Amino acid sequence: MAKQIIAVDLGGTQIRSARYDSDFKLLQRENTLTRAELGPIATVERMKAYIDRVLPASRDDIQGIGISSPGPLNPRTGVVIAPPNLPGWDNVPLGEMIADEFKLPVYVGNDANVAALAEASKGAGQGCRHLVYITVSTGIGSGIISDGRLVSGRDGLAAELGHIPIIVEQDRVSSVELEAAGPAIARRVKAALANGAQSSLRDQAGSDWERIDARLVGAAAAQGDPLAISSLAYAGRIIGMAIVTALLLFNPELVVVGGGVTKTGELLFAPLRQAVADHILDGAYVKDLRIERAALGDDVALVGAAALVATAGGNIDIGELGKRA
Amino acid sequence: MAKQIIAVDLGGTQIRSARYDSDFKLLQRENTLTRAELGPIATVERMKAYIDRVLPASRDDIQGIGISSPGPLNPRTGVVIAPPNLPGWDNVPLGEMIADEFKLPVYVGNDANVAALAEASKGAGQGCRHLVYITVSTGIGSGIISDGRLVSGRDGLAAELGHIPIIVEQDRVSSVELEAAGPAIARRVKAALANGAQSSLRDQAGSDWERIDARLVGAAAAQGDPLAISSLAYAGRIIGMAIVTALLLFNPELVVVGGGVTKTGELLFAPLRQAVADHILDGAYVKDLRIERAALGDDVALVGAAALVATAGGNIDIGELGKRA
Repeated sequence: MAKQIIAVDLGGTQIRSARYDSDFKLLQRENTLTRAELGPIATVERMKAYIDRVLPASRDDIQGIGISSPGPLNPRTGVVIAPPNLPGWDNVPLGEMIADEFKLPVYVGNDANVAALAEASKGAGQGCRHLVYITVSTGIGSGIISDGRLVSGRDGLAAELGHIPIIVEQDRVSSVELEAAGPAIARRVKAALANGAQSSLRDQAGSDWERIDARLVGAAAAQGDPLAISSLAYAGRIIGMAIVTALLLFNPELVVVGGGVTKTGELLFAPLRQAVADHILDGAYVKDLRIERAALGDDVALVGAAALVATAGGNIDIGELGKRA
Repeated sequence: MAKQIIAVDLGGTQIRSARYDSDFKLLQRENTLTRAELGPIATVERMKAYIDRVLPASRDDIQGIGISSPGPLNPRTGVVIAPPNLPGWDNVPLGEMIADEFKLPVYVGNDANVAALAEASKGAGQGCRHLVYITVSTGIGSGIISDGRLVSGRDGLAAELGHIPIIVEQDRVSSVELEAAGPAIARRVKAALANGAQSSLRDQAGSDWERIDARLVGAAAAQGDPLAISSLAYAGRIIGMAIVTALLLFNPELVVVGGGVTKTGELLFAPLRQAVADHILDGAYVKDLRIERAALGDDVALVGAAALVATAGGNIDIGELGKRA
């Protein structure tokens, strides 16, 4: 009797669709290019076509459609506000457009919140009731599960750890993302090179310093380059302080860190853990706390979109999923 | 049929006990000195005696006993860990001691969390489902209600906005409380006086600068003293930045600021609101957001302790209280 679930991952590059059974077992998966440059109408049409591909003959067998989308978006209304990597999207009523087409319940969640649900349901956080998920790549996103439910806030704008303000110098306020995401890691290295710093990246990049990105910095750090190591370490410390804030506000049992920048491993995680140890108020917050890399790979958004349907948009306690499964 | 509730406010100075009906209407109230210097056993005995005073003839009419206590404490176990203003308290199983005596359900909550429940039930936040409460006095405490339920975390240590780390100078990390609570407001004034700053407080305090506290600074600021005004404004900005962090993580509809320091009114609130406006990521977080002073006075802890019983320790949605009442 348990119904199947349709999951969609709307990314800046790819649209992916999948069908899962009620235990999040993958039954079918399809993908195509987003072609975001064609604008929202064309992209939503492509989404519909790829949902069609994974729909079974009878829609009665389907519990609903879950969509992971770049934010900001309002999960209560299904309106996607204005994602930086989806040009031309301006208050697109994505949830309504998909629901009108398929006459099924539709849940839309921002990609980081959806990933938090995925890690709690099938990833590093299985069985956890209090989980903080952070993804560090071009930006820093986060999703938080408190007592088994997604923290959404009044308009679904909660859980934005990447944007919390930090004072970096007297009277200069920045944010976690502006100091610690991939572009910031590269920017610090380029600024140091411009100031004459020694680094293997100077030769690698030749005269074109704009080529230097977080991936190149990570590779140089892995080879022992002190400038690259120091830029990653600074990012790790800033993320560690953001984690301290999350520990004090949510007192979780698990912090999951995902995203491309975590491929640098201990070069990021060692300073991150050190910052947590240095700045936490009390040992009780870190006793038995796990800080781990994300367990799910490329399918995290699809698994999370399926979990979004199973939890009715994050409103049903994830503990109920375990009981049902 | 609706049962009555016993509420206890354990403070550093006073113990207060009360009996409420199921709509939080006060039926009886008693109080005595805590005499914390006599240690935990004597204090718990005094609590028992003052619970007895408000207990009706039949315990069958009582839903439970709610206790507001200084933290840190674990609301899941009812163990009070080591409050700074209760000397000698070291992992006191307060909930169990009271439950053993009265054979009634007992719920223990830290005073700031309990105050958040009180403001949401009967104060500035009636009808709100997403509320952040901050109290600014000798310390900075907070309590957070997300989607109708108290945010507690794994061990009840969540919602500590006062302790989030802030970088105040390159490589010097402080906390919201260490920068913006009453003692910090006074400390900055004293440091400036020691450096020769002009202020009406120099004459008032005579040679005994240690007399200067946040109350005196507030009074001088109200008279237009620039040094006092500037110290309050700095505190307001720091609290405003902490509120920005809370908005980004919880996306509430209401922020309630209570505690003695809020008696300074706009001298604190104007720079606080300015910092929120300056540092918030997006206008959506502050659209229709209310930032208000606490509405409940001295009874906030008792009302909150009663709400703690009615919500079974913050686990029942506060929306259910409205339906029942």
